[in-house]
Amino acid sequence: MDERALHRLIGTIIDPERLADDCAVIPCGDLLAVASTDMLHETTDFPAGMTDWQVGWMAVAVTLSDIASMGATPGEVLLAVGLDRPERLFDIMEGARDCCAAFGAEIVGGDLDAHRELTIVSTGLGTVAPEHLVRRRGVRPNDVIAVTGPLGEAQAALAGYDRHRKELLEPQPRVAEGEVLGRAGVSAMMDISDGLALSLHDLLAVNDRGFAVETARLPLPAGVPEDEARELALYGGGDFELLFSAPPAIFPIPGVEAHIIGKVIPERVVLADGKPLERRGYLHEWSG
Amino acid sequence: MDERALHRLIGTIIDPERLADDCAVIPCGDLLAVASTDMLHETTDFPAGMTDWQVGWMAVAVTLSDIASMGATPGEVLLAVGLDRPERLFDIMEGARDCCAAFGAEIVGGDLDAHRELTIVSTGLGTVAPEHLVRRRGVRPNDVIAVTGPLGEAQAALAGYDRHRKELLEPQPRVAEGEVLGRAGVSAMMDISDGLALSLHDLLAVNDRGFAVETARLPLPAGVPEDEARELALYGGGDFELLFSAPPAIFPIPGVEAHIIGKVIPERVVLADGKPLERRGYLHEWSG
Repeated sequence: MDERALHRLIGTIIDPERLADDCAVIPCGDLLAVASTDMLHETTDFPAGMTDWQVGWMAVAVTLSDIASMGATPGEVLLAVGLDRPERLFDIMEGARDCCAAFGAEIVGGDLDAHRELTIVSTGLGTVAPEHLVRRRGVRPNDVIAVTGPLGEAQAALAGYDRHRKELLEPQPRVAEGEVLGRAGVSAMMDISDGLALSLHDLLAVNDRGFAVETARLPLPAGVPEDEARELALYGGGDFELLFSAPPAIFPIPGVEAHIIGKVIPERVVLADGKPLERRGYLHEWSG
Repeated sequence: MDERALHRLIGTIIDPERLADDCAVIPCGDLLAVASTDMLHETTDFPAGMTDWQVGWMAVAVTLSDIASMGATPGEVLLAVGLDRPERLFDIMEGARDCCAAFGAEIVGGDLDAHRELTIVSTGLGTVAPEHLVRRRGVRPNDVIAVTGPLGEAQAALAGYDRHRKELLEPQPRVAEGEVLGRAGVSAMMDISDGLALSLHDLLAVNDRGFAVETARLPLPAGVPEDEARELALYGGGDFELLFSAPPAIFPIPGVEAHIIGKVIPERVVLADGKPLERRGYLHEWSG
């Protein structure tokens, strides 16, 4: 049973509409609040060789990326830390604080516990004007689809391309880009944490149109042979770029490095160079 | 190094004012939002014999209790679940949903992951009018101190008094009571999750007055010999009652079972029957 199958099961208990986006959306005066929570464990989420400062940075970056994907501005972060060794806490908290500071957020609370395996859950809150909120649902017939930067860099680092280690270990959530895109009127958006192919299929699941990607248009990780780079860009996990649909007329978008990689099509399928794109990538799997 | 020592370390990285309460406080239009996150693990937080439904209930109850302790009304809960076995998820989510429903909240999002040991982090959001917000700081010279119900019941169940198993396994956060107390004008409040003695010392740490408790006034767990009951009421963990200070004139408080257990004193100490009350109870400890 994979993570998405479990999500479907949850949809029988929780309103499935609540599960369609990277963040929950909550009324907050004249604004909307968005909230996201992410659980990370040492063995599955933190690459070997990561410093504790980078662990803290990463834990915050994942939740800020979710907030960015809604077009929202991050505000507060809560951090629950299950610590295997207490002496790790200081560097982890410094990394978390520095990531918050870099993107205009603040750590406002948390919880602390002992745990055999280091486990961090970061919860992020942000705000957005209702007219600038972007959801995963919203793709329109004549939209193109685009991403905010190179894909597959994190996976390239895992494959041994050391020039991409910084993208793997100190990912930069696209916070400023998300805000600009929300105001620019993009129609749907999400972040690509589990790879482009899976993200396109996730987008497909909540929209009534499909997507046709041209792999020649994918921004690839530098310094990797082209065939391998394309594979990494399609299926590699760990990227923090935003994937969005938008009318062609809004490009170029000042302040955002936007790469158009394909277009919306009437059929509810995901195609790459005219052929169905496999729904695979980075998924948590249980043997059970 | 215990949990509170680590909290002091965190206070060198995060604004210590942020750490003084059960919840973070965030502006939200004309209201204030409060947010709390709690990490629970199978081996340290879920008593043996607990059903998965009860695990889900408990995970939500702890965060709703934090919200209640600020005088706020719970709204949304996010649940991050690190699952050891996927087949547990359904019952856990049902318990979480039922606890939300019982106290007017809703699960609006979450995260899901595989983990060797079941780990749940619940994050709760609530709202409160600024004039009804209650913090841990705020104790006034002529206040009395009070609690919302019997203390030590959860610990009594752990000690083998089976009539208290429901209080241990399906704790009732004092949500309605918290709201009433906020509006009634109590001066300081917190929930007693780690036992009365530790909670009084936590309250002492952020106030400039002390407390004198009369143990004869403590509401004790039923069916337990008096000496043992008093020990459980002072030091037992797992209770979900609220501890608050208030001017004597506001008692009785309609709708709240409030037991006055002592009074505020000028000296910054915690006394029980005139003698210093030991600062001990349920604490996470690291051997390191």
